[in-house]
Amino acid sequence: MSAGGSATRRDLTPLFEPASVAVVGASDDPVKWGNWLARAALRGASRRAVYLVNRRGGEVMGERAHRGLAELPEAPELAVLAVPPPALEPALDEAIAVGTRAVVVITAGSADGDAGGARDVALASRAREAGVILLGPNCLGVFDAAAGLELVPNDLPRGSIGLLSQSGNLALEIGMLAEAAGLGFSRVVSLGNQADLEAAELIQDLSEHDGTELIAIYVEDFRDGRAFARAAEAAARGGKPVVLLAVEHSEATARAVRSHTGALASEGAAIDAACAAAGMHPANSPQELVDLSQGLLGVGPPHGRRVAVLADGGGHGGIAAALAGGAGLELPALSANLRQTLRTGLPPTAAVANPIDLAGGGERDIHSYDRTARIVLASGEVDAVVMSGYFGGYTHYTETLARGEAAVAEALADAVAESGRPLLVQTMYPEAGAADALRRGGVPVYPTIERAVGVLARLADHVGRDSRGVPALPPPAEPIAAASYMDARALLAAGGVPFEPVRVVSSAAKAVAAAAELGYPVVLKALGMLHKSDVGGVVLGLSDERAVAAAYRDLRDRLAPAAVAVERMAPLDEGVELLVGARWDARFGPVALVGLGGVFTEVLRDVAVALAPVDEAIARELLLSLRAAPLLRGARGRAPVDLDAAAAAVAALSRVAAAHPEIAELEVNPLLALPEGAVGLDARVVPRVGAAGATNQV
Amino acid sequence: MSAGGSATRRDLTPLFEPASVAVVGASDDPVKWGNWLARAALRGASRRAVYLVNRRGGEVMGERAHRGLAELPEAPELAVLAVPPPALEPALDEAIAVGTRAVVVITAGSADGDAGGARDVALASRAREAGVILLGPNCLGVFDAAAGLELVPNDLPRGSIGLLSQSGNLALEIGMLAEAAGLGFSRVVSLGNQADLEAAELIQDLSEHDGTELIAIYVEDFRDGRAFARAAEAAARGGKPVVLLAVEHSEATARAVRSHTGALASEGAAIDAACAAAGMHPANSPQELVDLSQGLLGVGPPHGRRVAVLADGGGHGGIAAALAGGAGLELPALSANLRQTLRTGLPPTAAVANPIDLAGGGERDIHSYDRTARIVLASGEVDAVVMSGYFGGYTHYTETLARGEAAVAEALADAVAESGRPLLVQTMYPEAGAADALRRGGVPVYPTIERAVGVLARLADHVGRDSRGVPALPPPAEPIAAASYMDARALLAAGGVPFEPVRVVSSAAKAVAAAAELGYPVVLKALGMLHKSDVGGVVLGLSDERAVAAAYRDLRDRLAPAAVAVERMAPLDEGVELLVGARWDARFGPVALVGLGGVFTEVLRDVAVALAPVDEAIARELLLSLRAAPLLRGARGRAPVDLDAAAAAVAALSRVAAAHPEIAELEVNPLLALPEGAVGLDARVVPRVGAAGATNQV
Repeated sequence: MSAGGSATRRDLTPLFEPASVAVVGASDDPVKWGNWLARAALRGASRRAVYLVNRRGGEVMGERAHRGLAELPEAPELAVLAVPPPALEPALDEAIAVGTRAVVVITAGSADGDAGGARDVALASRAREAGVILLGPNCLGVFDAAAGLELVPNDLPRGSIGLLSQSGNLALEIGMLAEAAGLGFSRVVSLGNQADLEAAELIQDLSEHDGTELIAIYVEDFRDGRAFARAAEAAARGGKPVVLLAVEHSEATARAVRSHTGALASEGAAIDAACAAAGMHPANSPQELVDLSQGLLGVGPPHGRRVAVLADGGGHGGIAAALAGGAGLELPALSANLRQTLRTGLPPTAAVANPIDLAGGGERDIHSYDRTARIVLASGEVDAVVMSGYFGGYTHYTETLARGEAAVAEALADAVAESGRPLLVQTMYPEAGAADALRRGGVPVYPTIERAVGVLARLADHVGRDSRGVPALPPPAEPIAAASYMDARALLAAGGVPFEPVRVVSSAAKAVAAAAELGYPVVLKALGMLHKSDVGGVVLGLSDERAVAAAYRDLRDRLAPAAVAVERMAPLDEGVELLVGARWDARFGPVALVGLGGVFTEVLRDVAVALAPVDEAIARELLLSLRAAPLLRGARGRAPVDLDAAAAAVAALSRVAAAHPEIAELEVNPLLALPEGAVGLDARVVPRVGAAGATNQV
Repeated sequence: MSAGGSATRRDLTPLFEPASVAVVGASDDPVKWGNWLARAALRGASRRAVYLVNRRGGEVMGERAHRGLAELPEAPELAVLAVPPPALEPALDEAIAVGTRAVVVITAGSADGDAGGARDVALASRAREAGVILLGPNCLGVFDAAAGLELVPNDLPRGSIGLLSQSGNLALEIGMLAEAAGLGFSRVVSLGNQADLEAAELIQDLSEHDGTELIAIYVEDFRDGRAFARAAEAAARGGKPVVLLAVEHSEATARAVRSHTGALASEGAAIDAACAAAGMHPANSPQELVDLSQGLLGVGPPHGRRVAVLADGGGHGGIAAALAGGAGLELPALSANLRQTLRTGLPPTAAVANPIDLAGGGERDIHSYDRTARIVLASGEVDAVVMSGYFGGYTHYTETLARGEAAVAEALADAVAESGRPLLVQTMYPEAGAADALRRGGVPVYPTIERAVGVLARLADHVGRDSRGVPALPPPAEPIAAASYMDARALLAAGGVPFEPVRVVSSAAKAVAAAAELGYPVVLKALGMLHKSDVGGVVLGLSDERAVAAAYRDLRDRLAPAAVAVERMAPLDEGVELLVGARWDARFGPVALVGLGGVFTEVLRDVAVALAPVDEAIARELLLSLRAAPLLRGARGRAPVDLDAAAAAVAALSRVAAAHPEIAELEVNPLLALPEGAVGLDARVVPRVGAAGATNQV
């Protein structure tokens, strides 16, 4: 799917830890990239040879400017190309000729909006043939904290986050927000157009980089989405969480959609599916990316959804508890034993059930905070503690309390480490020394309670979801020859999706004979139209010969169908109608979707997605993740549906979809989930436009 | 419902702008309230006489300390009482005796957790009898910026927000967050236990206070919730928005609930209903309160949901657009004409459809920002503009750009004022001079894009919802005598809720006769049990004599009901089942609720609430606000339901509820909304525990 790819692993040392660097296009003009990067490169001059290249020669920034790479005393291991667009290919050729091992291409390659265009492909293939690593074009540089390599236009904070970014301003913003949270970068790579080096290969590399504890990504173009997801999955399994901020391609939203699945399994849904498969943490903004990163570092995520809220004052505790409940966290009432233990040393008016309110205990004895937190964390009655409010502000009270705060912060960090359960802190004083001490101890600190609670809820959502895995695609099956209802049905039935028996007839008499053979009641469906139901092409509940014959004639007269299908009628009122489908996403391949069927599909948009193919276990998990899942479990005295059968049908459809790249959209809507078994009541195939071997007839 | 109340308006000048102040309990001990407040009071000594009172006499803070109020040369207009609890009543008596006109009671009155207890009631009635205004007890002080009255323990920023708070730490936190947003307070009142002065009276007063442009409230106890809501409604109608941060009473969540309505129309839902009725803006956290306040000041809320996103760079624009879409805002594609106008002066790679990406235009010509924003704001094609990203950071570029930024900020503020449409700005540099200039010009500035978009979405949600009004309660009707199904039905039918005809029978023969009279098919319902459906006490679709007789005998044998109701069966499959109910909330009185009925009530919790009684127009609005509203309008070829009839039934039920304070919960579930008409299929009344005149039989 992409010019680059990551089939063979390459050694990226020349990119991150080069023995020598040349900046081609170095300039004294302070608004040029060649100036910023030359200055940045020179900051590492004590660590490695730095050469400036400018075709006019002379001096740049008081240093000798060489006229070309060939003039240098040695081949630079890394060359940064910041030259005018027409000079790009000659500069690359020269770098290759002198033996450069990696190039960072700042210059735009293919025209904006045409990343991956012909010029990019040509650049990448020139570099690959020569065994040269190419980053960009249209990228903003590379940063390695440990190597002292700062080939980026701005100062960046140092830390343990490896950042891949397709936007310079966002890398800068994430850096500023990370610094405010006491975090920083081990490595930063500006991805540019990813003509050669793609995000997937860089994720693989970061997952093996000692200085990197977490991988953060801002990306606009996933390239080979499955390779991307597989690399992220490997990193996460190796203990390095991956946080992803992605923007959908706006062009893509213009694609034609012909089924409900097509509309509901959007690009955004495909990204969600990839995150679930790979165990990535999706973020919706730079701040959320940094907030999640803070929560994932240190002691890491909780093992469940139970949280205790701790505050000194009913207001902060009440607000935190309300937000936690609203975010889907559980606030269990603490046990009588635990409440009794907590009471010791707290004012008599303290609340200890959850939320815990120290009721002024903090200013009487600042260690009320850590004593209480330690007991609750150790109790096992909750999976995490959220502390909210004034802590950090005692510095403004008395000197005793100010000194106490620092000790409390350390004690809190110890209690977290001992219990292995996270504590998330919101303080009105995020810049206080006590807040810094907490951060240094690996306790995330947030300036607002909604961010603390939001991070905890997101991390708790992730519990048990990090092992779905990115599924391998099966070898493509024989492409479909036609895409009618009967073809779709046959394809899916062969793949294991159950349907009611059917006969295709072309006269009223044959319809009656088929019905007698199948058994009443039956359904008649007019064949040859896309939205049968909407044009009155489906007649339900025909329970005798006369009704069948009349319905046949009516369909014939109104719709002149190519033929009519006679099917045994499923017991609609005994089951729950599901929507089951799959869409072939341009980046992530086949994506499976399940949802509540019937009129509720469109109205409530209650759907779940996963990368296809899914196995029965994941299919079941998808079904049970629906808001409407209680209907499947048997709400208000109804019989529960046969989840095994429904999950098997979902898995079967997903396997068919994964074996047919020529199918854009595949759908069974509804699949009737019954107390025993499940049965497809309709089927639809939408071939990919231009896909070989498929026609678009229905 | 409360000891105080706001039936008669009082002049609160002695509280906010006293000619003289005495601090009773003034102290040199730096950890005592009497110290903090004395120091704070003395800061206003150039504006008014300030007297310190300590029963030991001598000096406090280098000032003379009087032994009692009687010793003072004049009666202080305002007295602050910060004395030990046992000294409180004598201090109040002394204040009354010397002719003090207002007292601020810092000392705790009734025990914590017993606000409104007997001691509070006694204090308030003593003050009221003497015509003295009493704030507190258990309050933290009062602040008036214009009067230079700072009887609060911390420095607070000055501005145009009137704040009422039931928590000192939250007032402090809100003050810090407000200051960071360039906002501050006109007045701050710590509510304490509201023994005499309640929030409602203070809202009324702030709504007429010249220096206050917006009223912000943190409250734990609404006291008389309807009076509170009416005061807020009047303030909002008078042009002063009210932002409300509330914490539910945790005790209240323990109340018994006997109907779906009882479970769904929670205390939180009642607060939501009060907000909708009064046009208040609910906030969930201190930061959200300040963010909303920033959005409401300046040019104010948008007139619709359409927004254009403006950024220099595709990343920031794409993230903002995705968040806006996710928050329910609309991003219309801009017209060809407008796109053409926008292109002038922008780089050829700029995107102008929406989101608008200046594509580096900002650094080439900083005025690309204001030129573009002005054109879009003036176009009428959107209701608001969100600008996101780097603006504010050009200061770090070149001097020309730095100077330009300030001019751009002013031009942006002008464009907003001229168009009357809001611009909300997110910048990576919220502390930059350009950001300050924007705030001074009334343009809200946020450090993260989720907050900018979140505020705009919340303000847009509010469009057209500010005129519902707090309904008056009708005079109480004759209390119900009994609460059986038949009683509930009769009560509601008399109030205008339609039901199918019914006959109560006590033999199979009478059941058959009743069915013949009513017409088949019929339903049989066993009388005398609370959850008829759950125990199999309802038999549907009986279409002949034999079926009726058999069903009767089956009910009799299984359930031994008191009697059996025979009703004509409604055409279930032709309509949509709704849940319609009301609950009498302890603070806000009757709250009406509508939702999707049947199994979906519990599963999807898709409900809407309003203060009862509601008229037909509001009832219709509630129905159409449901996520499932498309089902009512006729999704996928179904006939739309008779909204007039459904709304009339909702309004009728709400009127019955509002006339019966002895009823805790009242419910018709389901109400079948049909293409023509609506009909109640069940009815339930849950009397208030201990309510006179009602028994709890069913």
